[in-house]
Amino acid sequence: MAKLAAPSGFRDLLPDQYRKREDLIRRIRTTYESFGFEGMDTPAVENLQVLLGKGGGENEKLMFRVLKRGAELERARAAGGELADLAMRFDLTVPLARYYATHRAALPAVFKRYQIGPVWRAERPQYGRFREFVQCDVDVLGSASMAVEADVILAAATALGQLGFEALIVRLNSRPLLAQLVRQCGVGDEQLGAAIVGIDKLDKTPPDAVRAELAEKGVPDAAAAALLDLHARSRAADGADLLSEVGERVGAAGAAAVSQLREVLTLTPPLPSGARLAFDPFLARGLDYYTGPIFEIAAAGVPFSLGGGGRFDELVERLAGVKVPACGFSLGFERIYTLMEERAMFPAAARAADVLIAVPAAEALGDAVRLAAELRATGLRVDSFPQPGKLGPQFELAQRKDIPFAVVADPGRLAAGTLEVRDLGTRQSAQVARAELAAWLRDRLASAGG
Amino acid sequence: MAKLAAPSGFRDLLPDQYRKREDLIRRIRTTYESFGFEGMDTPAVENLQVLLGKGGGENEKLMFRVLKRGAELERARAAGGELADLAMRFDLTVPLARYYATHRAALPAVFKRYQIGPVWRAERPQYGRFREFVQCDVDVLGSASMAVEADVILAAATALGQLGFEALIVRLNSRPLLAQLVRQCGVGDEQLGAAIVGIDKLDKTPPDAVRAELAEKGVPDAAAAALLDLHARSRAADGADLLSEVGERVGAAGAAAVSQLREVLTLTPPLPSGARLAFDPFLARGLDYYTGPIFEIAAAGVPFSLGGGGRFDELVERLAGVKVPACGFSLGFERIYTLMEERAMFPAAARAADVLIAVPAAEALGDAVRLAAELRATGLRVDSFPQPGKLGPQFELAQRKDIPFAVVADPGRLAAGTLEVRDLGTRQSAQVARAELAAWLRDRLASAGG
Repeated sequence: MAKLAAPSGFRDLLPDQYRKREDLIRRIRTTYESFGFEGMDTPAVENLQVLLGKGGGENEKLMFRVLKRGAELERARAAGGELADLAMRFDLTVPLARYYATHRAALPAVFKRYQIGPVWRAERPQYGRFREFVQCDVDVLGSASMAVEADVILAAATALGQLGFEALIVRLNSRPLLAQLVRQCGVGDEQLGAAIVGIDKLDKTPPDAVRAELAEKGVPDAAAAALLDLHARSRAADGADLLSEVGERVGAAGAAAVSQLREVLTLTPPLPSGARLAFDPFLARGLDYYTGPIFEIAAAGVPFSLGGGGRFDELVERLAGVKVPACGFSLGFERIYTLMEERAMFPAAARAADVLIAVPAAEALGDAVRLAAELRATGLRVDSFPQPGKLGPQFELAQRKDIPFAVVADPGRLAAGTLEVRDLGTRQSAQVARAELAAWLRDRLASAGG
Repeated sequence: MAKLAAPSGFRDLLPDQYRKREDLIRRIRTTYESFGFEGMDTPAVENLQVLLGKGGGENEKLMFRVLKRGAELERARAAGGELADLAMRFDLTVPLARYYATHRAALPAVFKRYQIGPVWRAERPQYGRFREFVQCDVDVLGSASMAVEADVILAAATALGQLGFEALIVRLNSRPLLAQLVRQCGVGDEQLGAAIVGIDKLDKTPPDAVRAELAEKGVPDAAAAALLDLHARSRAADGADLLSEVGERVGAAGAAAVSQLREVLTLTPPLPSGARLAFDPFLARGLDYYTGPIFEIAAAGVPFSLGGGGRFDELVERLAGVKVPACGFSLGFERIYTLMEERAMFPAAARAADVLIAVPAAEALGDAVRLAAELRATGLRVDSFPQPGKLGPQFELAQRKDIPFAVVADPGRLAAGTLEVRDLGTRQSAQVARAELAAWLRDRLASAGG
């Protein structure tokens, strides 16, 4: 017998986890749909050639490749050739580019889409990192307007607000502006990438360590000093002032980027749940495909971001040969789920059923099934226990499934028309007429907040 | 550039398809949850050894295997060994057995679960057959009571009834009873399987062709004649009479199976939407793992079943070494979806948004985004167009997304406090005060049945 567990790095979802994750997906989807984003999906796998060499970077190396089959496999094996023809998707962006290239003619000119689904990466299994995890993206393809940035920022902040996150902060920057700013401080084009990576660490690493790293990468001391100074002041200053100051520093070369950011700040309405949008001249984002505004969202007291995104006007062309402006926001589904779990942010209402029909004796089974159907027809969610017998284990099962009430389908009482209902929280029982049972339960469930 | 389409045999979901499929999943899930079934999930892949040689039969040959990685792959390749360590799940039953073996201690004694998700099979691509498709299973593990059969039959019939299927018929048989009946007609144990397969074709194939097939398989002529005669009478007779007749024929050897079927017929309450439950002594079901009652559900005028299932008390032990009685019902998700699409059974309400904010001029963009947020806060679903410009293309986009109304965010009118609302169905416009806009739209949407 093989090892009977999910493969290393993969997870099973127990009912409670499944319920919470589905609840989370449903709520994010509801918010995104309220903005006119349309759901869509792509297959779990893509042709290997579609995923290869398309800027996936590290993720590309982590692909799960799917073995060719039959004669093709034999040929590849004999010839020492490529053994795979498909690979499991490692993100939702490369498949989006491919999907857009395939279906462009059938899609609206401005395509607002969301996609929530699993992706797979052969990461080394470790605590909190999984090989199958959910991504949750909104993207708008087909518009270069900064109203798109405002739209995806507002939608993501609204979604997190609806989930119960407060005091959210959205940091906003521009990739070309950041490059220009770093250049203006005296960093040459060769060191640009390294300087951005180094500065990006300043919120978590002591300045001297960053200074040393910059020196090692060949960034001149004067340039490093200018960057560190500007960084320190950016952390103290107010957003609007900062944008003016940065605008003056970069001059004409960064004017277009500054004007885009001003537009995003103007177009974005006040964010819900006390969320704030603020310019951060040192926000960098990891991926190198951004061409305009970039942003990241974080919650008070959480040391990592809950999502981020930006404009990527050249990516779809690079991946799929179709030129189309694009901008998106990706929520960190697994982080959000874990945080909500830790902070008990899931509503208690997500229970398996409202009531269990317990069956003390075999001759009551048929009546129990009918009673369950009768209650269900009134809109209640009703579990029925299939094995007649002692009530203790049946009540225990109900409690285990968070079912608040049990009705005892006693044959004698069923005939008499009055049933015993047990409140599994208080362990108190009541006698209720069968005809009034549905109303009685609904009343108690409503007052219990369910 | 690689071929820019989904891999052969795989499908992209366009927004309209996605919306309908998600709607279908949501409705089935709601019904199953109202019966106390709990959702759960397993990874897309399992360890190859878990899926190999476990009775998957033909499906096992159709597995997509996932290539080993790194040094392990090099070793396997050099040694001519197994190149894969994982495989994509080809059904939801083998993973359920593995899941149960892994998590038994954390699951209730009677585990009622549903699972809805994709499975993958490397079928030869052909019309209407896909390599990635959704399965939709309910199963109860841990009870040998016939109330379980009644529960899953009622749940499946209720789910299909809720979707709008009428005059459903559930055919009921018992695998051991069928074997006993065929034996009793004079078929030897060697020919048992072939005889059952042959008789199973009688509803679609002329009797003479079946007779010839049976003769070829070595079934004695007298036995074939007895089977064909019984089959012909079964199609004319009434279910209850038939069960008595079959009971007499099989005698003591089939008494337990007959009594189980009687119990299922007694315990199942009247099915909703005019669905009927009827004994069919020749229902066979393809899979060989059934150990008790089996059933299939069909809709009036549809030449194929919409789902089926049965009791499989030995399968979990065979697959995962844990002895536990089990019974389940699997709905044919893809067939149901296709049929509902063909018959226009999806509700029209599944539109992308309630209203689009159209933007004639750039200076109105900010106000348009604020107006959208304002309307959204009242519960409306509001799309906003990011590119200011001519209204024609914006109205066209709204119509393409089935959005019934467009509000024109004209800067002058916004300042005056009265806005133009266009009904995209009638192409008529109305002037509505901004303060009354949400109520006005809600009113029109409600009267349009939305």
